[in-house]
Amino acid sequence: MREAIAFSDDCPPRLRQAIEYSLLAPGKRLRPQLVLLATQACGGQYADAMPAAVAVEMIHAYSLVHDDLPAMDDDDLRRGRPTCHKHFDEATAILVGDALLARAFEVLASQLEPAELAARCCAALAQAAGATALVGGQADDLAAAGVPGEQHTNNIDQTRIHQLESIHRRKTGALFRVSLQLGALVARATAAQLEALDTYGRHLGLAFQVVDDLLDVSGSEADVGKRVGQDERQGKTTYPAVLGTEASRQRVETLVTTACQAIADWGEAAAPLRDLAVFVGQRTK
Amino acid sequence: MREAIAFSDDCPPRLRQAIEYSLLAPGKRLRPQLVLLATQACGGQYADAMPAAVAVEMIHAYSLVHDDLPAMDDDDLRRGRPTCHKHFDEATAILVGDALLARAFEVLASQLEPAELAARCCAALAQAAGATALVGGQADDLAAAGVPGEQHTNNIDQTRIHQLESIHRRKTGALFRVSLQLGALVARATAAQLEALDTYGRHLGLAFQVVDDLLDVSGSEADVGKRVGQDERQGKTTYPAVLGTEASRQRVETLVTTACQAIADWGEAAAPLRDLAVFVGQRTK
Repeated sequence: MREAIAFSDDCPPRLRQAIEYSLLAPGKRLRPQLVLLATQACGGQYADAMPAAVAVEMIHAYSLVHDDLPAMDDDDLRRGRPTCHKHFDEATAILVGDALLARAFEVLASQLEPAELAARCCAALAQAAGATALVGGQADDLAAAGVPGEQHTNNIDQTRIHQLESIHRRKTGALFRVSLQLGALVARATAAQLEALDTYGRHLGLAFQVVDDLLDVSGSEADVGKRVGQDERQGKTTYPAVLGTEASRQRVETLVTTACQAIADWGEAAAPLRDLAVFVGQRTK
Repeated sequence: MREAIAFSDDCPPRLRQAIEYSLLAPGKRLRPQLVLLATQACGGQYADAMPAAVAVEMIHAYSLVHDDLPAMDDDDLRRGRPTCHKHFDEATAILVGDALLARAFEVLASQLEPAELAARCCAALAQAAGATALVGGQADDLAAAGVPGEQHTNNIDQTRIHQLESIHRRKTGALFRVSLQLGALVARATAAQLEALDTYGRHLGLAFQVVDDLLDVSGSEADVGKRVGQDERQGKTTYPAVLGTEASRQRVETLVTTACQAIADWGEAAAPLRDLAVFVGQRTK
């Protein structure tokens, strides 16, 4: 990952530090894992998929840096460390996100071969990062948070579930799915393989989000107290708030099962992807 | 341009409006012109270069929206209209920039053919938009503005000129040069043609910037009063402040002449590019 941001001296030192701080921060690297495991599941080689793995992590890192900004989610901490704009400054954080976003496409376009693969992956990643997916989901998430007084009832409200899933399909799901897609494309996957991985990714992405919401409630991660406080302040709708904790847990199980079923007959090569789905589901406990 | 942002319904309406507001704002469209004129100069067709023209304008529009943000240059007006974050809000403006940046690569990657061209153009544009060019130049520009008490002396200071040119080479020049490069690549330009256009672009970019600084001083644009005030407040170094007005004007003439010389023997097909350089230079008067 570090080599991918070995910029020339034309990159100002402070900007370089802030990019490293943000991209190389501790994390699960779930999206790059999805790229590599999808490649493996489709019979390809990890090494060929590395540029795609790096690129999706860059998009993920950029989105975290911008989402944390004061005008957005206004988070001071990210995994126990000061967020980029807190550790550096707001202008630097905006520029870090911009630089990582551009760099993701530079890596894909210049390091993937042949050119058909590079162009197709650039188009797919740009779509997933853009106004109809990642950016659109964040815009709707902020807009939903700006409507106070609708959250924290215990009634199951189909409209709110629909809204919540629409946001997460774009904000989290799109990047999960394009990670799998890129990995599969590198391995020259068939249309049927791409479709099965997309089904897997859609359900996994949603499971991941429900688990995230459940972790906020159960307080099993270090910075959870703060996040719950902020989510309440921002009026964010969460799955436990809409469905209740137990129904949310059941939903995770169903989603993980459906994800695994999509690639159930893929044999050993896809076992790591199925294990990953189970792992994501078990983060609730 | 409008068709390039005809997003599906997954794009939230307010975000869509803000993207249109920012991309379709009145402007000179200098960078798309450079793309199309470079294609023409190298014997290609305008129609083939349209995706590249749209993409560079998207990068330009994104950079204006983010540069105007309160944490950056903090501008309320852009060409006499409220800036994106003033007309909408700060979060939306951040997301508009992000969406335009991603969309530029989607347009290039999905609309340029063949794939070799698409991949090469994506890599070149990403490099020009990134940490070592556009973003890096803006970071250094902000950092330079943060060092008060060094500007507005009339001494010619080689270090300051060097610093100023280093910033503008990346902040303005890189996008000028990549616009010409993309246009040339679409027309299958030779290495010699690419090199000549790069020389043209380097000098034109710098001339454009010196003229911009001169216009700030002479007040010949509507919103200039505000800009000068802000530049002073932010302590920005300008060419007239470092070189003096007359020497800056002479510098523009030399730069325009050198730009035109680079493509002097290209005949009629390159006449519009030479005319454009002269036009850029005459904006001082």
